Amino acid sequence: MSSPQRFDLLISEVGPRDGLQSVSATMSTAHKHAWIDALVAAGVQEIEVGSFVSPKLLPQMADAAEVVRHATAHPGVTIMALVPNLKGAEAAMRAGAHKITLPVSASPAHSMANVRKTPAQMVEEVRAIARLRDEIAPAVHIEAGISTAFGCTLQGLVPEDEVIALAAACVAAGADESGLSDTTGMANPAQVKRLFTRLRSELGDKAGAAHMHNTRGLGLANCLAAYEAGVRTFDASQAGLGGCPYAPGASGNVVTEDLVFMFEAMGLRTGIDIERLLAARETLAAGLPGEALYGMLPPAGLPKGFVPQRY
Amino acid sequence: MSSPQRFDLLISEVGPRDGLQSVSATMSTAHKHAWIDALVAAGVQEIEVGSFVSPKLLPQMADAAEVVRHATAHPGVTIMALVPNLKGAEAAMRAGAHKITLPVSASPAHSMANVRKTPAQMVEEVRAIARLRDEIAPAVHIEAGISTAFGCTLQGLVPEDEVIALAAACVAAGADESGLSDTTGMANPAQVKRLFTRLRSELGDKAGAAHMHNTRGLGLANCLAAYEAGVRTFDASQAGLGGCPYAPGASGNVVTEDLVFMFEAMGLRTGIDIERLLAARETLAAGLPGEALYGMLPPAGLPKGFVPQRY
Repeated sequence: MSSPQRFDLLISEVGPRDGLQSVSATMSTAHKHAWIDALVAAGVQEIEVGSFVSPKLLPQMADAAEVVRHATAHPGVTIMALVPNLKGAEAAMRAGAHKITLPVSASPAHSMANVRKTPAQMVEEVRAIARLRDEIAPAVHIEAGISTAFGCTLQGLVPEDEVIALAAACVAAGADESGLSDTTGMANPAQVKRLFTRLRSELGDKAGAAHMHNTRGLGLANCLAAYEAGVRTFDASQAGLGGCPYAPGASGNVVTEDLVFMFEAMGLRTGIDIERLLAARETLAAGLPGEALYGMLPPAGLPKGFVPQRY
Repeated sequence: MSSPQRFDLLISEVGPRDGLQSVSATMSTAHKHAWIDALVAAGVQEIEVGSFVSPKLLPQMADAAEVVRHATAHPGVTIMALVPNLKGAEAAMRAGAHKITLPVSASPAHSMANVRKTPAQMVEEVRAIARLRDEIAPAVHIEAGISTAFGCTLQGLVPEDEVIALAAACVAAGADESGLSDTTGMANPAQVKRLFTRLRSELGDKAGAAHMHNTRGLGLANCLAAYEAGVRTFDASQAGLGGCPYAPGASGNVVTEDLVFMFEAMGLRTGIDIERLLAARETLAAGLPGEALYGMLPPAGLPKGFVPQRY
């Protein structure tokens, strides 16, 4: 489901979840719908629209079920939701999400801080979710995103063998794919290439997305390295919104606008119309007045002589 | 002279020239000396310290000869100067610069705006400079940097054949090396890899540096692509100062701090101590109060568990 079917690669927009859960303001449900509609109009084919967590913990995500229902009315677009546990997974599936993603941290310290479970307990959560999915929503696709795969602000280095073993354990427990996240912006291109090469050799077509941050400016270089290692699905957040509240100092998802520009300029087809993507940024801005928006392409504009692909 | 002798690659710091000529304030000569000293203390092995142009045009560079004399007192460091023409080249050589770099634009429109000469006239300037060098300063190394090699804000696309032919003509006219500059921040990694691969196949070890800008956020990704194409010398500017005043909208040299971090994190040895490089940034800041400084590593800091190389 997440593999690109019509284009050279798939950009998975995580802003409506990862971005909105990290800002202090709460975007109204109507504005979320308008932003998602604008992303779809730009050609975005996969969108993570919400998180099924306690509204006490994340009031910004209290309308997740309603947003999923709105978003799934767009034909041909994969609508994802983040879930921290079995309870969230059930709610997401009942709301009609096509794909659910569970964060499974390779760093025990980050795992405890983020979801109050060990990595091994999270693998058991994957197993329980997969079992439930088989019962109530067999078409739903389950992703386990290995967070802190490239380092952790709490524990520092994360052994690569543990990252690969955890991804494999998630797939063995029933996940349809497992990707790697640079939750804390510590990855470098050599490490990205090495780890994704190992992941792909271990998991084959169940090796999932690259989720990179731009904390130290290496976000696009890391995506390029992942592409060269064979990765074809990339998470990104419009205007670079997002980060992880439980990883101190982590901030800055890769900016969708810049990432799409890089790949399109390289002659790769993302299916996304850049000018309409820039229009969606305006819709986002209207729904989050005063919020800092990131990205280098939007202020610089498209280069003279650059002809955007139309899809 | 510019090829790395002891390390895996060479970072050529252009801030004291490219950076300082682009800001409106003029850094005092004493502050320039202190900044250069701090860069040398960090292990920087090549520094472009000034531009030999009319002080009426660029008052920030009026002390270029004095700065070259100060900088060349550091043993083992290559001191470069930019020269727009034969007259500037003579002044730079007489001041004792080890290496001079002449900007030769592949875009006729940009060439006229920048130096009021056509590309072909600039090749003749290279020839005259090389002849003079043979007479008065045979040890001086001549670089022709092909600007707007990846596109031009004035004319748009720049044919790749013209770029490569121009670089080859500069070397045939006597330049010791010819590199490629993304003057206007329009390059993408596929194009960078393609052009540097051609350049190296055409010029062999006379293929020179990659000079990348971060205008659209692709600076580090483009440096990574150049590295993969075999490039081992990279221009960068501390705090990302710089741009080109005659290329509208162009701004943002690749940030030295972020570039050194990327390569060092990949396990490549630059010879530069990152912590001392961050200290040099403070020296720069002291000499340019109120100036905006760029870079993602400096605010984020080194990742937990990252052990900087000591040289």
